[in-house]
Amino acid sequence: MSRETGGRRAPTLEDVAARAGVSRATASRVVNEDLRVRPAAREAVLDAVAELGYRPNRAARSLVTREAGSIAVVVPEAEDRVFRDPFFASLLVSITQALADSTVQVLLAMGRPGDGCRKIEKYLRGGGTDGAIVVSHHQDEEIWRALRETRLPAVHVGRPQAGGAGLPYVDMDNEAGGALAAEHLISRGRRRIGTIAGPQDMAPGADRLSGWRRAMRAAGLADDLVEIADFSAESGGERMRRLLRREKGLDAVFVASDLMAVAAIHEIQAAGLQVPEQIAVVGFDDSQAASLSRPSLTTVRNPVDSLATTAVDMLLRLMQGEEAKSVVLDTQLVRRASTDFSVLK
Amino acid sequence: MSRETGGRRAPTLEDVAARAGVSRATASRVVNEDLRVRPAAREAVLDAVAELGYRPNRAARSLVTREAGSIAVVVPEAEDRVFRDPFFASLLVSITQALADSTVQVLLAMGRPGDGCRKIEKYLRGGGTDGAIVVSHHQDEEIWRALRETRLPAVHVGRPQAGGAGLPYVDMDNEAGGALAAEHLISRGRRRIGTIAGPQDMAPGADRLSGWRRAMRAAGLADDLVEIADFSAESGGERMRRLLRREKGLDAVFVASDLMAVAAIHEIQAAGLQVPEQIAVVGFDDSQAASLSRPSLTTVRNPVDSLATTAVDMLLRLMQGEEAKSVVLDTQLVRRASTDFSVLK
Repeated sequence: MSRETGGRRAPTLEDVAARAGVSRATASRVVNEDLRVRPAAREAVLDAVAELGYRPNRAARSLVTREAGSIAVVVPEAEDRVFRDPFFASLLVSITQALADSTVQVLLAMGRPGDGCRKIEKYLRGGGTDGAIVVSHHQDEEIWRALRETRLPAVHVGRPQAGGAGLPYVDMDNEAGGALAAEHLISRGRRRIGTIAGPQDMAPGADRLSGWRRAMRAAGLADDLVEIADFSAESGGERMRRLLRREKGLDAVFVASDLMAVAAIHEIQAAGLQVPEQIAVVGFDDSQAASLSRPSLTTVRNPVDSLATTAVDMLLRLMQGEEAKSVVLDTQLVRRASTDFSVLK
Repeated sequence: MSRETGGRRAPTLEDVAARAGVSRATASRVVNEDLRVRPAAREAVLDAVAELGYRPNRAARSLVTREAGSIAVVVPEAEDRVFRDPFFASLLVSITQALADSTVQVLLAMGRPGDGCRKIEKYLRGGGTDGAIVVSHHQDEEIWRALRETRLPAVHVGRPQAGGAGLPYVDMDNEAGGALAAEHLISRGRRRIGTIAGPQDMAPGADRLSGWRRAMRAAGLADDLVEIADFSAESGGERMRRLLRREKGLDAVFVASDLMAVAAIHEIQAAGLQVPEQIAVVGFDDSQAASLSRPSLTTVRNPVDSLATTAVDMLLRLMQGEEAKSVVLDTQLVRRASTDFSVLK
């Protein structure tokens, strides 16, 4: 891996995309002379290239993508979980689309922790692929060991636990997202606010909860109404029932994923209470379930497309022998009817 | 590939499973000494093994699976399509589970027809995998050529168009399924029966339609109310609106997938008509959408789990140098409320 040698930083494709006001994928397509881009966007990107003096490292990149047969997207989760959770689906679709204009074939390798990870380890050691994007918040020792020992270029989506064997990662700011959710509920006049968190041995579980706690304490509110779930819809519904039993005065809840939040809304309604009139709900992800929910769900946006394009860009850099630094992406709140009387349900 | 040499056929694992009344996957787990099987099922399988004189080719099989690093499940479809269509998800989960007790890593390789297929071709030629299960009803010339020229062991799920370059396939009996659907509607007293078919250049599209036609003609009914869709929910809804405009006396419709059938039910209801009172509906697949639909959907079962386990078994045979013959699986009708007043909605 090469080190940066100092001096003024050369403009990157991200700079071009930001200046042009387009996605990185669009900027990439223009730079790679792919014609599937709207003329206005194309023009904006070419202007930004000229203004910034951007020079794509095209020779090296096309060499990499011409030689590389495949990259593996490694998801150490049970297959049915991967297919049921819309986050994985969106991420995989975005990763594949970010590589649409290369000749690299994307392979999806799933496997539940334990036996599954050992199979993946064996596969990665076998030399069947040229790079890996690991999508996980678990501690995947077998996979990390295989990546370290084979020196296969690899990046993590999601900040890995325990350092992730030094792999660079891209993640969203889960802590800030949890704080955003709590601050929004507080600004809507809610005071007795609970939370249904994810598993505390996974970064999104721990970080979203700690952001919620920080905002609650900053507002001088109690942070005792915490229930830990496992990100499945079932667990979200079950923990909501517990919160309702624990606290009659509950007036809001932050649920750490949309899938769990939709289940929580069903439980609140089943208990004869109204969302948002009696209990306001904020989810996390901004998946399709959030807009389909009745009432529609206020949620923290998970920038899945940016996670994917950033991970692909980092991996391509590593495959060229360049350095790739970890990146944490900003979050934002998407306001809908589950926290707001005035929003159309 | 070895030829069969005649003589009495040796009992297969399918025979054992059928005799024991369990799935092939369960029989496989017992034979491979996997402990995750209920004691009663275990006993039934061991009895069947003894009665039939089944001898697993265990030495060869474990050699194959010990040496093989991976097999690729090749789906020449756009990624978002694969993740949205529950058939693909169920099939992939079943394939992975059928290989759970081996050391083979399953890789999913998707790519839309055209550019995507050329990437897959390049990947298959690169030697990164030890076998392939192609899930497609398209004509995938690039993929067939790569498989033929590399002699990579490969099977098709879904009868391929134009012979599929001689690859063995496993499919369900789509023609019989279409006929079952029509016969059921006729037996419920319906006479003016339309159909929303899939694309006619795909075997399930063409075969389900031709089965429907056969049954309609056999009953002396007109087979003119045909609309061709593309298996997407949107197209199913749109074609239903057309059928409603075309024929005021329409009293039933056979829709060639559950995803389209659910959309069709919504359109019928939006037009102020009742299912099944005014228009009865039969779908195809028996996916989760069929039982969640209101009214619940009568449908033709797509034996996804058997398709998966059969494909895996055929591929493992080929990887051992044995022969694998194409298999067509039976279908059956699952009766629910969308064709029946007496069934609980």
